[in-house]
Amino acid sequence: MKSRSEVLLLTLDLAGVFVFALEGASAAISAQLDLLGIMVIAFATALCGGIIRDLLIGAVPPKAIQDWPYGSTAFAGGAIVFLLHGFVDRIPGPLMLLLDAGGLALCAVAGADKALEYRINPFLAVLMGGVTGVGGGTVRDVLLAHVPRVLESDVYASAALAGSALMVIGIKLKGSPMFMAIAGGTVCFLLRIVSVWQDWNLPKVLW
Amino acid sequence: MKSRSEVLLLTLDLAGVFVFALEGASAAISAQLDLLGIMVIAFATALCGGIIRDLLIGAVPPKAIQDWPYGSTAFAGGAIVFLLHGFVDRIPGPLMLLLDAGGLALCAVAGADKALEYRINPFLAVLMGGVTGVGGGTVRDVLLAHVPRVLESDVYASAALAGSALMVIGIKLKGSPMFMAIAGGTVCFLLRIVSVWQDWNLPKVLW
Amino acid sequence: MKSRSEVLLLTLDLAGVFVFALEGASAAISAQLDLLGIMVIAFATALCGGIIRDLLIGAVPPKAIQDWPYGSTAFAGGAIVFLLHGFVDRIPGPLMLLLDAGGLALCAVAGADKALEYRINPFLAVLMGGVTGVGGGTVRDVLLAHVPRVLESDVYASAALAGSALMVIGIKLKGSPMFMAIAGGTVCFLLRIVSVWQDWNLPKVLW
Repeated sequence: MKSRSEVLLLTLDLAGVFVFALEGASAAISAQLDLLGIMVIAFATALCGGIIRDLLIGAVPPKAIQDWPYGSTAFAGGAIVFLLHGFVDRIPGPLMLLLDAGGLALCAVAGADKALEYRINPFLAVLMGGVTGVGGGTVRDVLLAHVPRVLESDVYASAALAGSALMVIGIKLKGSPMFMAIAGGTVCFLLRIVSVWQDWNLPKVLW
Repeated sequence: MKSRSEVLLLTLDLAGVFVFALEGASAAISAQLDLLGIMVIAFATALCGGIIRDLLIGAVPPKAIQDWPYGSTAFAGGAIVFLLHGFVDRIPGPLMLLLDAGGLALCAVAGADKALEYRINPFLAVLMGGVTGVGGGTVRDVLLAHVPRVLESDVYASAALAGSALMVIGIKLKGSPMFMAIAGGTVCFLLRIVSVWQDWNLPKVLW
Repeated sequence: MKSRSEVLLLTLDLAGVFVFALEGASAAISAQLDLLGIMVIAFATALCGGIIRDLLIGAVPPKAIQDWPYGSTAFAGGAIVFLLHGFVDRIPGPLMLLLDAGGLALCAVAGADKALEYRINPFLAVLMGGVTGVGGGTVRDVLLAHVPRVLESDVYASAALAGSALMVIGIKLKGSPMFMAIAGGTVCFLLRIVSVWQDWNLPKVLW
């Protein structure tokens, strides 16, 4: 039997997977993919970040390949977008933004924490937080033959890295892991929201 | 020494690798790649499905990286297309379709079976059958900077998934593995052939 | 404490990482990516070849994920290009070519040697040398949504494969590993330089 906090964590995790799957499936529909393509892109967007992290830190087989709840949740998200496309399309943008920022914060913090657990160097554990957060979207964009949006503009990966970095530094300074995870996640979440609201972007070199 | 059935299986496996390598090399020539590009795409198309599956289920190093017959067969396919391009181009389409469907069926069934052997959850073992069947073509299309064809239309990955699912369900219901593998492979093969013949496609969302 | 030759090897290795990071970051700037995109592409170009090799031969977590000097060097390269873009742009082409050929030779020889150490079949160890040399550039081109340049023209991967092959064959014929590594690296380096100078290309099929 699982403890109450484990159930809470799994629920949050699956909620993040679900939101990312909705987004992936919507992108697949815009690209005119068929039902299979929609399901594949939903799965890839929702789970490839964690899968890449797991392969890199040596946690094989990745959790998302070994256990069924992750894949099923991703496919449920894809199926809902396929069946109720008109409806999902009408979810207000700001709500999607909040949900997505929440999913990103969760992925980043959980990803960095898992890397620490596998004794990865703290600097690279922060990167693993970033990979967990944006890896899925990157794979989606590669499959759709775009340059990954996350590389071009927006404070997205940077928010994930900032949140992961705060958590990892806090834990290395003997902070309570639970507290630092909440602090890191909050920073990632707020940074993402505020950057969209204020239209922040990272600098480019233009000459 | 290998038993007769092991030799049979290896021969079938290498035949599938060879057919996929021919297809990959032809696509590379259409994309005007040079000799190295042709060999790389032949290798990737023929072997990346199995390599990705092996990485995901934790079977490292992947069989195709550890043993030489797989890579050599793929390169032989690439070389034949390079040297005899006019000739390979004249292989009748229906024959290529039959060979390709055979390769797909073999990959799907073998992939799902290997995942079960590595104690992957049955639901994800079915997915691994699909990955083994279509992973190589997906990598080929990503390297050629296309959206993977398998995501856009056709009953191709779906045939692989249907065959894998039949086999996995059968084995879980205590069917004979050998019998269920033949049944699953046959379903995949026929589904692929009939879908091309009848021009079946998966639904898209178009509004 | 590390021996003097280990320090020398690490220094050479990091020099190669640095050169590849400069090239990756320049490509990212040409593609108008933002600061994060520049850093990601610098990291990917410099380190993905080795990471892919390590995943394939079962050396997990890959060295570049476990230790901090590799990632830091790659990011330092990216940051320098970002801050001093005008300056880096003015590095003479022939100097970049020499540095790049040096990095390629180093990667190819080190990659093949590590594969042998992990008991990979010699034929595939040669391929692993090639993957180490060109994997990073291939991932960069995939992320920038191009067909990888290395597949289209130029003697680049071929030089890496030739150098790796010479080293692996030499070692299998009981040559001194150190001597064969230097010979293989030299062949790769010279082949690359001469092929650019003489405008050599691999054949394509054109009918």
